[in-house]
Amino acid sequence: MEGTRGATEEDAVLVSGATGFVGARLLARLVADGRRVAAVVRPGSDRTALEAAGVAIVVDDGTAEGLARAVAEIRPTTVFHLAAKFTAIHATADVDGLIEANVAFGARLAEAASRAGTTRFVTAGTSWQVDEAGAERANSLYAATKAAFEAILGHYAANEGMRALSLRLYDTWGPGDTRRKLLPLLLSARASGAHLGLSPGDQRLDLVHVDDVVEGFLAAEARLTAAPAGTFERFALRSGRAVSVKELVAILEQVSGRPMPVAFGERPYRVGEVMAPSPGEILPGWRARIGLEEGLAALIGGDACSTAKR
Amino acid sequence: MEGTRGATEEDAVLVSGATGFVGARLLARLVADGRRVAAVVRPGSDRTALEAAGVAIVVDDGTAEGLARAVAEIRPTTVFHLAAKFTAIHATADVDGLIEANVAFGARLAEAASRAGTTRFVTAGTSWQVDEAGAERANSLYAATKAAFEAILGHYAANEGMRALSLRLYDTWGPGDTRRKLLPLLLSARASGAHLGLSPGDQRLDLVHVDDVVEGFLAAEARLTAAPAGTFERFALRSGRAVSVKELVAILEQVSGRPMPVAFGERPYRVGEVMAPSPGEILPGWRARIGLEEGLAALIGGDACSTAKR
Repeated sequence: MEGTRGATEEDAVLVSGATGFVGARLLARLVADGRRVAAVVRPGSDRTALEAAGVAIVVDDGTAEGLARAVAEIRPTTVFHLAAKFTAIHATADVDGLIEANVAFGARLAEAASRAGTTRFVTAGTSWQVDEAGAERANSLYAATKAAFEAILGHYAANEGMRALSLRLYDTWGPGDTRRKLLPLLLSARASGAHLGLSPGDQRLDLVHVDDVVEGFLAAEARLTAAPAGTFERFALRSGRAVSVKELVAILEQVSGRPMPVAFGERPYRVGEVMAPSPGEILPGWRARIGLEEGLAALIGGDACSTAKR
Repeated sequence: MEGTRGATEEDAVLVSGATGFVGARLLARLVADGRRVAAVVRPGSDRTALEAAGVAIVVDDGTAEGLARAVAEIRPTTVFHLAAKFTAIHATADVDGLIEANVAFGARLAEAASRAGTTRFVTAGTSWQVDEAGAERANSLYAATKAAFEAILGHYAANEGMRALSLRLYDTWGPGDTRRKLLPLLLSARASGAHLGLSPGDQRLDLVHVDDVVEGFLAAEARLTAAPAGTFERFALRSGRAVSVKELVAILEQVSGRPMPVAFGERPYRVGEVMAPSPGEILPGWRARIGLEEGLAALIGGDACSTAKR
């Protein structure tokens, strides 16, 4: 097999977290673009959707040597690393899993990629790594594990010639999102009419449509293609528009043309609630194009203007 | 047991890496100072020396929950975290062990300490986390794992009220050092007369005596005692005197009063050899007190002046 591969063979791309909300959308886009795509999965993962999409499968056996052997078969020129374990507030029982998923797995993936000759590594960071003043200061153990992985990735950039970029994600949303996050819960309440108790609702979010996030990952890859070896950059994928939960509910009511079954102040803010999206330089050349009103109208399937007139 | 503990009971201190070169010396000092000392060890570790020293043993079972239960029995107010796995140039087979020893173990120790009410956490970093220009830029995966752990520890400081300090260690040396490092190798060659081939020898080291390093850890603990919750600081434990390998050999010859059986230029510099110690703010209130000439003379057991006159 190795011998048949020529220098002109199309570059392969390897995606982790390809069964997650953002990863699946990115994978579908890469496949649609005709890219040669592989997904890295755990031994027990459900591969049905991946195999249906026709992508190659790389199995992470939990060791750097095993993963390096598997990745060497693919020889990806780009890695998109989106796999992550999330906890807003962790318990002691979560620590081992957070470290394994967010640091150890990323470390062996970066090692495997480096050995396989990968030159571009784009990883998903979080807005929670940065405080409201713009300083690098994680607000949770989850965000700290993301920062820890960036430190590991820094080695592969500084000393092994990789080009790396961390995209700090904000509140990603869009069709097919089943995560227990605010917007899916609001859409579910809207559809069912079931009452939803909310916090006072003054915390502000920067909501970015998943298709804009996918464009961000592709823009990051293009940016690294033109970057010198050793590059390691960190950018925000944010729209620049901060919307409070109260305003978001008002937008949903406007788009739907009917009131939302919610009550503000029924729940307290979460401990350490982020009240405003962190700042940070937006990825150059990229901007969020799908507005909330437009995207929500498409998602709900109604016509915002005609619905509002009823 | 819990019920018998009063608020006035002497503060306990927990040490990791207590069987290592620096850790053992720190442990001995803490015991000599009459402190209530515990050491955290792996299940298979040799505890003979620790038990002989009369310190309590905390076994790390490899899980955050297990370690948290064990540390809760000790309730340390201070943790000195010196356990580490070192590789100058790593192979793929080293990655899992580096992450486990230098990131995952530290994370569960910080979690366990935080749950047990520990307020002061002093960790051993490395000068290799900083480049010659003073920027945070690890020169190896080893140094990157140290930086990654600092990112994890940052969470416990910023969000859980811990006071944390990372001491970046340079070239530590002193009696009883059996590590395969330059100075032990030189002392061994001096004693045996066996030929030792060296690199060209123009790389400069900042050599700090282990007793000065121990003083640094105690000074860091004292500093954190006066610091507000949430403090996280990074300081260098360096003498400020950079000595080339050639100069070091000359000092050894002067102290010994006889030539060293070494040849410069027989070996190449290591890939990525650090040619000068990194800068970085020295821990305030601390300074290296044991000079090379004085310390080496004591170590060799001779009198430098009379020997030199022979």
